[in-house]
Amino acid sequence: MIRIIGLDPGLQRTGWGVVESDGNRLSHVAHGTVTSRASADLAARLLELYEGLTAVFRAFAPAEAAVENTFVNKDAAGTLKLGQARAISLLVPAQAGLPVAEYAPNQVKKSVVGVGHAEKTQVLHMVKVLLPQCGDPAPDEADALAVAICHAHLGKARAMQMQALAR
Amino acid sequence: MIRIIGLDPGLQRTGWGVVESDGNRLSHVAHGTVTSRASADLAARLLELYEGLTAVFRAFAPAEAAVENTFVNKDAAGTLKLGQARAISLLVPAQAGLPVAEYAPNQVKKSVVGVGHAEKTQVLHMVKVLLPQCGDPAPDEADALAVAICHAHLGKARAMQMQALAR
Repeated sequence: MIRIIGLDPGLQRTGWGVVESDGNRLSHVAHGTVTSRASADLAARLLELYEGLTAVFRAFAPAEAAVENTFVNKDAAGTLKLGQARAISLLVPAQAGLPVAEYAPNQVKKSVVGVGHAEKTQVLHMVKVLLPQCGDPAPDEADALAVAICHAHLGKARAMQMQALAR
Repeated sequence: MIRIIGLDPGLQRTGWGVVESDGNRLSHVAHGTVTSRASADLAARLLELYEGLTAVFRAFAPAEAAVENTFVNKDAAGTLKLGQARAISLLVPAQAGLPVAEYAPNQVKKSVVGVGHAEKTQVLHMVKVLLPQCGDPAPDEADALAVAICHAHLGKARAMQMQALAR
C-alpha cells in the first residue's frame, strides 16, 4: 500500500489531497488547502506556503508526491507567480526525501475522466466517484486529489518505489 | 553597519554577493554561485539551490536580503523556470527572518552605473570600482553584488532596519 499526496500549486491557494493506493484499490485519506495572505509580501507568502505544506507532510507522511504541471498562464507575471508557488510544491517533498512526479493537466484528466479535454465539473464528479469518502472538496482540493489518483493509476507509484529501493 | 546579501536567481546558477554598508562606506565580504545539476529532476534541483543558499546564509549571516526582480523571459517555460528559482531566493531569507527587498534590473543599473539602460560590462566595471576587494566575479556574482549595492545605496537598508526594530 502506497500513500500518495497530490498537489495543485497556486500562490494564493495550494490544494493538497492524500490517497492510499493498494493495487487496484484506492482510498481517500485527507485533503485541504494551504493559503498565503495576499496582503503579505512575496517572500512571506512563499514562507507561509512552505510552512503549511511542511506541516501537511509531517501530519500525513506520504511516501510519494505528484504535482500538476501547468505552465500556461495569461501573462508573464502570472506565469512567474505560478512558478514561484510550484517551486514550494516541489521543494517540500524533495526535502522530505520523496520522489516527485509531474503530470500535465490533460494527463490528469485523461487518467481520471478518460478524456484529456474533460471539464472541471467532470473531474470533480469522477474524484467523488473514485473516492466516495472524500465529501465535498473545494476545486483546488479536487484537482489535488485528481493528481494523486492519476499518479496511482499510471502505475508510476510502483515504478518509482522500485527506483527508490534500488538507490 | 549592515550586512546585505544580494541574489541573482537562476535555476542553473544563482549568484550571491555579500557587502557591508556603513553610512556612505561600502565593503566587499564575499560572493559566489550556488548551482544545480541540469541532469537532476526539477524538485531535486530546487532542493540543491535551497540547501546551497541556506548554507551561504548560515556562513555569512546577512541582516538583509535583496533580490533581482526580472520577470521577462523568452517564453512561458523560461519564465516558469525563473519563477521557480526566484522562489528559493525569496524563501531562504524569509525563513531566516530577514526582510527581502526586490529591485527591477533597471533600478539596479541606475543605482550602480547611473543609467537604467547600462550594459552588463558597465555594471561589472562599476561593481569592481565600488568594491575594489571583490577580485573578478563571474557575471551572476557581479549582478548579485550589484543588487546588494543598489539596496545599500537606496537607503532602504536603513528604512527596513527601522521597520524590523519597530515590529
